[in-house]
Amino acid sequence: MPKVLITTVPFALKNKLPLELLKKSNIEYLINPLNKKLTEDEMIKMVSDFDVIIAGTELITKKVMSHASNLKMISRVGIGLDSVDLIEAEKREIVVSYTPDAPAPAVAELTVGLMLTLLRSVHLSNMEMHAKKWHRFFGRRLSEVTIGIIGVGRIGIGVLRHLKGFTKLKILVNDIMPSSNLEKEFNIEWVDKDTIYHKADIVTIHTPLTAKTKNMLKRSQMLTMKKNAIIINTARGGIVNEQDLYDVMQSGHLSGAAIDVFNFEPYTGKLSEVQRCVLTAHMGSMSVDCRTRMEVEATEEAIRFLTNQPLKCVVPEEEYMVQREGL
Amino acid sequence: MPKVLITTVPFALKNKLPLELLKKSNIEYLINPLNKKLTEDEMIKMVSDFDVIIAGTELITKKVMSHASNLKMISRVGIGLDSVDLIEAEKREIVVSYTPDAPAPAVAELTVGLMLTLLRSVHLSNMEMHAKKWHRFFGRRLSEVTIGIIGVGRIGIGVLRHLKGFTKLKILVNDIMPSSNLEKEFNIEWVDKDTIYHKADIVTIHTPLTAKTKNMLKRSQMLTMKKNAIIINTARGGIVNEQDLYDVMQSGHLSGAAIDVFNFEPYTGKLSEVQRCVLTAHMGSMSVDCRTRMEVEATEEAIRFLTNQPLKCVVPEEEYMVQREGL
Repeated sequence: MPKVLITTVPFALKNKLPLELLKKSNIEYLINPLNKKLTEDEMIKMVSDFDVIIAGTELITKKVMSHASNLKMISRVGIGLDSVDLIEAEKREIVVSYTPDAPAPAVAELTVGLMLTLLRSVHLSNMEMHAKKWHRFFGRRLSEVTIGIIGVGRIGIGVLRHLKGFTKLKILVNDIMPSSNLEKEFNIEWVDKDTIYHKADIVTIHTPLTAKTKNMLKRSQMLTMKKNAIIINTARGGIVNEQDLYDVMQSGHLSGAAIDVFNFEPYTGKLSEVQRCVLTAHMGSMSVDCRTRMEVEATEEAIRFLTNQPLKCVVPEEEYMVQREGL
Repeated sequence: MPKVLITTVPFALKNKLPLELLKKSNIEYLINPLNKKLTEDEMIKMVSDFDVIIAGTELITKKVMSHASNLKMISRVGIGLDSVDLIEAEKREIVVSYTPDAPAPAVAELTVGLMLTLLRSVHLSNMEMHAKKWHRFFGRRLSEVTIGIIGVGRIGIGVLRHLKGFTKLKILVNDIMPSSNLEKEFNIEWVDKDTIYHKADIVTIHTPLTAKTKNMLKRSQMLTMKKNAIIINTARGGIVNEQDLYDVMQSGHLSGAAIDVFNFEPYTGKLSEVQRCVLTAHMGSMSVDCRTRMEVEATEEAIRFLTNQPLKCVVPEEEYMVQREGL
């Protein structure tokens, strides 16, 4: 009987369908008993014996795979593949699938919410009011500011759609593969990243984490941004350098930031000392509908694999190229 | 030389233009030296001698006016007139003007931000993360929920515009004077208030405070709302009963609320004990652009009055009718 390890947590908490699907197919499964994001070492101890991993963002490195002699498939609940060594998986003929469309709507909505929170200091006033302090913070409106979007894929486009209801705002966009069609639907201007850092009041990141985007936003870039600019990272930890963000904000630069993703999760680092930095616990995809869709899609793909049916969400060759060529 | 009392605070903090305009017209002014929202008693002590009050939401009652024998004009920085006894002003031939259009864009943006914050528990995760606690909250997307808007005037329509970028969401609306034109532009359904309380996941209030809207949302209405519903009040304190909201939320009903306006400001009441209640310090109109526009418009109107020019923003007869007839 095939065995599935579900490492991502939470899993099937709001909707039991993924577990029912596994049971109906007579597939044995184990849900991550530590109920937290597993480290590489914890993965190594847990993965032997399993045929399939239904995975979150836990590291599935060469070392992890070398301890998973039965592993034939990785089904990622989500879109990012920075956690999976695709080259090693390919060598070992381990199939990798993912759910690229499911998380985007939830991440895009959260991002727009964070923009409005930061522009109006809702986070600061809320903390003060709960400490019975009254201060009327001045803010800015979306329609007054320039927004810079780096990475205009599924999520970046979702953000653009939501911003359609806010007229007059100026939007600068950047992507390694600019799509010319988007200019017809949205009032955007394609620029290089440096122009975004210089001109945008809000810089929001929607790229994958790759060799090229790791530490994309470092101290030097942050310091070229406006003094009252805002950084939002709902993409992946490591794209915005955490230590540099801490230092730059402590020096008084940047009016705010919102960070949902971290180098090491669960995060308990120093950004928690910065009151004007909104912190959330990797909740980008955590709307009930998107999370359920991600879990169901990843589970169905795992079942297709184990029951010899054609797969629907195999990771495309481009993703392997990104890792092979360090893009 | 005419004398103007500016009771609203902050005033001319981000943009000095209102003060420059007064100086250029040789008008003597005093800015509220207590630098907080004045009580009725504080107003009484301060108002004698002044020809014009440039007012925030401080009470300008019959009693206050009886201590202001020189008062000839009240120029409200903002839209709500619940704080001004219009009937008494009319008797004393005190002219009242206001700035009805200026605050709306800022209030509408804040409201949509509060919706997204509450749906995704950004406020709760942010507080926990700053205490180094990691919990991935589940949320809902705007596109999944039903929104109920009570009061579809300048601000309610602004909210509708911003929601255009979020497709598929269901919007129920209520107003004492439903405008049939809006159905052409927005995907909305006109319903009675009880239907909104029963069906909406988010109820947001955009009415003035009048005899009819005072305590509009009491315990009995709150308890007919869904257990995980959300209340947003960026309109006026007193429309949502504060004590009832506290009791109902402490009992576990409602998943969240956002309250920007209070019976008594500065607010230091018990809602500060309710973590899932987002509290902000009457910041609806506090974007730099809207606040500046409000202050400039109210100041220009005061100057027009004192220099015998035709007024542009006199409060219309309907507002007097509302107070006269207890509507």
